[in-house]
Amino acid sequence: MKGEMKAVMKKKPGPGAELVTVPIPKIGPRDILVKIKATSICGTDSHIYEWNAWAQRRIKPPRIMGHEFGGEVVEVGKDVTFVSLGDHVSAETHIVDNKCFQCRTGQAHVCQNMKILGVDTDGCFAEYVAIPEENAWVNDKSLPPEIAAIQEPFGNAVHTVFSEGVEGKTVAIFGLGPIGICAVAICKAAGAAHIFGVGRKNEYRLNLAKKMGADTIIKSNEQDAVKIIKEATGGYGVDVALEMAGSQEAINQSLKVLKPGGRMSALGLPEGDITLNWADDIIFKAVRIYGITGRRMYGTWYTTAGLLKSGRVNVEPIITHKFKLEEYDKGMQLMREGKCGKVVLYP
Amino acid sequence: MKGEMKAVMKKKPGPGAELVTVPIPKIGPRDILVKIKATSICGTDSHIYEWNAWAQRRIKPPRIMGHEFGGEVVEVGKDVTFVSLGDHVSAETHIVDNKCFQCRTGQAHVCQNMKILGVDTDGCFAEYVAIPEENAWVNDKSLPPEIAAIQEPFGNAVHTVFSEGVEGKTVAIFGLGPIGICAVAICKAAGAAHIFGVGRKNEYRLNLAKKMGADTIIKSNEQDAVKIIKEATGGYGVDVALEMAGSQEAINQSLKVLKPGGRMSALGLPEGDITLNWADDIIFKAVRIYGITGRRMYGTWYTTAGLLKSGRVNVEPIITHKFKLEEYDKGMQLMREGKCGKVVLYP
Amino acid sequence: MKGEMKAVMKKKPGPGAELVTVPIPKIGPRDILVKIKATSICGTDSHIYEWNAWAQRRIKPPRIMGHEFGGEVVEVGKDVTFVSLGDHVSAETHIVDNKCFQCRTGQAHVCQNMKILGVDTDGCFAEYVAIPEENAWVNDKSLPPEIAAIQEPFGNAVHTVFSEGVEGKTVAIFGLGPIGICAVAICKAAGAAHIFGVGRKNEYRLNLAKKMGADTIIKSNEQDAVKIIKEATGGYGVDVALEMAGSQEAINQSLKVLKPGGRMSALGLPEGDITLNWADDIIFKAVRIYGITGRRMYGTWYTTAGLLKSGRVNVEPIITHKFKLEEYDKGMQLMREGKCGKVVLYP
Amino acid sequence: MKGEMKAVMKKKPGPGAELVTVPIPKIGPRDILVKIKATSICGTDSHIYEWNAWAQRRIKPPRIMGHEFGGEVVEVGKDVTFVSLGDHVSAETHIVDNKCFQCRTGQAHVCQNMKILGVDTDGCFAEYVAIPEENAWVNDKSLPPEIAAIQEPFGNAVHTVFSEGVEGKTVAIFGLGPIGICAVAICKAAGAAHIFGVGRKNEYRLNLAKKMGADTIIKSNEQDAVKIIKEATGGYGVDVALEMAGSQEAINQSLKVLKPGGRMSALGLPEGDITLNWADDIIFKAVRIYGITGRRMYGTWYTTAGLLKSGRVNVEPIITHKFKLEEYDKGMQLMREGKCGKVVLYP
Repeated sequence: MKGEMKAVMKKKPGPGAELVTVPIPKIGPRDILVKIKATSICGTDSHIYEWNAWAQRRIKPPRIMGHEFGGEVVEVGKDVTFVSLGDHVSAETHIVDNKCFQCRTGQAHVCQNMKILGVDTDGCFAEYVAIPEENAWVNDKSLPPEIAAIQEPFGNAVHTVFSEGVEGKTVAIFGLGPIGICAVAICKAAGAAHIFGVGRKNEYRLNLAKKMGADTIIKSNEQDAVKIIKEATGGYGVDVALEMAGSQEAINQSLKVLKPGGRMSALGLPEGDITLNWADDIIFKAVRIYGITGRRMYGTWYTTAGLLKSGRVNVEPIITHKFKLEEYDKGMQLMREGKCGKVVLYP
Repeated sequence: MKGEMKAVMKKKPGPGAELVTVPIPKIGPRDILVKIKATSICGTDSHIYEWNAWAQRRIKPPRIMGHEFGGEVVEVGKDVTFVSLGDHVSAETHIVDNKCFQCRTGQAHVCQNMKILGVDTDGCFAEYVAIPEENAWVNDKSLPPEIAAIQEPFGNAVHTVFSEGVEGKTVAIFGLGPIGICAVAICKAAGAAHIFGVGRKNEYRLNLAKKMGADTIIKSNEQDAVKIIKEATGGYGVDVALEMAGSQEAINQSLKVLKPGGRMSALGLPEGDITLNWADDIIFKAVRIYGITGRRMYGTWYTTAGLLKSGRVNVEPIITHKFKLEEYDKGMQLMREGKCGKVVLYP
Repeated sequence: MKGEMKAVMKKKPGPGAELVTVPIPKIGPRDILVKIKATSICGTDSHIYEWNAWAQRRIKPPRIMGHEFGGEVVEVGKDVTFVSLGDHVSAETHIVDNKCFQCRTGQAHVCQNMKILGVDTDGCFAEYVAIPEENAWVNDKSLPPEIAAIQEPFGNAVHTVFSEGVEGKTVAIFGLGPIGICAVAICKAAGAAHIFGVGRKNEYRLNLAKKMGADTIIKSNEQDAVKIIKEATGGYGVDVALEMAGSQEAINQSLKVLKPGGRMSALGLPEGDITLNWADDIIFKAVRIYGITGRRMYGTWYTTAGLLKSGRVNVEPIITHKFKLEEYDKGMQLMREGKCGKVVLYP
Repeated sequence: MKGEMKAVMKKKPGPGAELVTVPIPKIGPRDILVKIKATSICGTDSHIYEWNAWAQRRIKPPRIMGHEFGGEVVEVGKDVTFVSLGDHVSAETHIVDNKCFQCRTGQAHVCQNMKILGVDTDGCFAEYVAIPEENAWVNDKSLPPEIAAIQEPFGNAVHTVFSEGVEGKTVAIFGLGPIGICAVAICKAAGAAHIFGVGRKNEYRLNLAKKMGADTIIKSNEQDAVKIIKEATGGYGVDVALEMAGSQEAINQSLKVLKPGGRMSALGLPEGDITLNWADDIIFKAVRIYGITGRRMYGTWYTTAGLLKSGRVNVEPIITHKFKLEEYDKGMQLMREGKCGKVVLYP
């Protein structure tokens, strides 16, 4: 498609981003071009905007930001087979090589030659985005575009929650950012017996976690999460710990509140090293720990769609702010302050 | 405890049962005596009452019937360790030997020297029942006794549903007796994306299944279940088939509606042999089939308690009739006609 | 590549095959051209040659037969990414669509739009074969071409054996054709405690199964397999039953010798319907049944290569006959008579 | 049984042990008395003998040491049901409560009220030992008593190796003490494709690991284990890491050599805290970590017996020293120096 488009770009190293006008991306024979209807801001986008240490190492400007979106297919390459013009799509943001051991054995989410949309390739904070067809997830046309957009981070939570089942089980979720709050809603929808949501000072998000189904909310900066959870579970601890904070404290507490024989799934990314009581907290308790990254391609997407399309999970309340694409600075500021669930931008 | 008690007894071979007065059972050093607060009627009890072919082979009268109950512990043997006087309890009805391969490897539910309460030993359609301590399941005192009673059949459904997870998946349940209806409620609570309930002529139970959360109700005597389910799933079929009818037709349909790569869990007990298209329906579709009997001891009970105590599943609507113990004939008649969910008797 | 080649072709409906000279196949941008060094005869090839009922329905002559091979890459399409000229390769023979639910969730072996090499597309009983790059399995150059060729059927056995682990377990294998014999060797290499091999009259193959590691050989036409296995396992039955015969008798016996709580994996394809004692053999025994088709793409190939490359399994003895491609009629006759393990043809 | 017996006792706090004459233990109604035929020395016994920090905290003298044995049943309590006089037995050394969540859900090996034979109760460095019947493992009478004795530590290795399968996989084993060496032998018997054994200075045990089947032996004090293993696996790393050393270095290296998507099973017990690169080594690699303690009760014992009885694993070479019970000091010295595999004592 010819023409120009608006896009939010990290134009050069340093904090912030610029609204630019650039050519609509060209597509290859196996790609599709998507007109963006809604796009949401991820913590990763916030890191790129703020230009933190990770972003400085990883991002090579100029780069159009963003990877979470819902949109409509407006052009398809000549070798495209299952996506059609007019389809509503979102994207799996991990672009993989399909030839490594991981890709060939159902673990493409840890492909060792992976590129990430909006990080290593131009993203979707724009009017259009080009993606490989195989990364397209075709949505029900009844799905609102902002719900479509947040399937990607919701999928991180789905992947974390369902390393094993949660039905009838007690679950402690550490870290109540948007993905942690999605995990609360998912555990609720999947029949968890009791959901402990552990956050820190952010009242806004603690309240949102409560609203989405947490049975007990714990502020770990004021309260002793380990003591509260142990007491509430008859001294046993929880069946399942979901670590979505990525801090030394939360990782330690996740292991401490875990029942002997229980499982922990860990998604949160700490900055530095983590110190553990390996003997007492892992060996003698005989726990299972799952490191979680991305989404199963594409099992997680089917589960996600199954939970959302059916209405088993209503994620509407998690979408707390809606702005025009041009107002991205407002969204980024809310993200920095944490006074939001998901922030959606409309081009 | 000394004294006498009322009990419903299969006194001699043949249909029916009698209300008798018998001594309160004596307990051994590792047993407990339970005062029954509520007991519910199982299909097995109905078979014994009606004196069908199975009952004629298996039951040796005189036998006090019944195995589903909620009650209070009024006496404990001297070697009892974890149950206390005053505890509210239900029972796992499979009394096992703890020494066979199955018992020693976490599969006590298929112990090859199993006795069944109310079948091989005197049951709970009475004022008191004696059970081994190890078969006791201690309930929260807040749990109503009739809910406590139906944990046992509910547990059959829990065991069947959770051979693997159902989150975000499409599920077809064949057979809408009380256990099938429990399965509907459980799938709903566990985040199944779409629940197809397939029954036959029994409007009463079809309606109850609808009420408990089935998204689509199919009358297989009037409608083409395979066609409806295939169409509703985009031609793929369902992720999960739960066979709780035990008929040739339902078993065949379960396999036909199952997606290639899907799983079937089978609880229903057919009378005679079953004929299958083994090549097309099992091999080429690469499905997994789980035969289900009883409840995991005691994993299933923990899941069951987790779902009920938390209110994730409200089983109240499944308890459709409440009678005095003496009115057992009325209950048995309802069971014969199928115009009921669970029927509870109060001694 | 230009030029002509020899090939064994089903030229028209009816029994037999012809040696023909045809153009070397053209390749597309994502295909590779392989010079065949060794190719082996599968039961499927035998069915096509004999022109049985299945072949009559499925095969559209003219068709070059064959799908098991080891060869060298002599041409690559312009979009090929991981296969190089000179690579030694074999092929996964299931050519899949990569877009259906099954392909997108790690179950490509049951892709619902699958084409099979040598069945739906021209095969490898020839000097050259063209295959999609993604179907290539790159071999160690040290692997002899005839071993490379039989990885495909060996993979069927790997897939069947490892639905679950066999370490320290008792295993009964029903059906001692080449794949059943591979299963014997695999179970031996994987630490099965005792391997029962159950065949019928074919002394040649019973002996081969013995040689490959079966601890007990049973001729089910003369001996009571169920009685022998039950007695040898202390009355319990085996932990694992592998059904590779596809007959009513073998399926029944597989279920009868299976321990309560055990697992059965079924690869054999019966011609007509199968009748089972569903209640006693599946429900009350609480068994798990896995329908097996093809090979996990490509997990099974990694396991296969791991077992062969390391020498943990020596499959040399299973390759009992080696002929020139032109002698395919001799190979087909041996297959008909069953007086062989694997028959290899060299172009 | 009346009379006296010889026993090796930690009589008072401090290093060493004494040979004493004490009454033969009395048994309760559910216990058995076993005449010891062979008993082997565990690292735990060595810690008690040496009186290390752990022993000082845990052991209350006087205490008869030892927990690994093979013996014959010479007396049974009146309520014993499956063990008979004359049976050859070994013991699961974890004496559990059978009533906690873990015991009731197939995880008795992490019972939270566990007592350990020879640690919390009198052990088997003696002519007789009394154990609960339920802890008895009945051996084939053909099994030599010293092999019977080492089933317990061998079982630790079985439990560690088979958290998941190893067939056709690459495995790195860190820590080549007796249990690590058992793990080598088990992986070999179970079809692992390549086994890396990583030890330190102990030439005696490195050689023993080589003899038992390690394909590559690495001395981590002289060689770069991570580099060697990465290079040997084409840069991918191993499918499976077994951590049996319990050191900071070995835990780190286990995670570094693990393939993205791989699994680590950890049995080794470090003294202090362990520091990890949680983000890179666990999250981004999406690994699974299993903490391992004890043996599955009694699934691990069945697997162990299956591997040993069948001869799939020959553990004879691991038994490097045989002494009379009275020579326990010699055995303890060898353990301290590490110049041994398993040391067996005969009363």
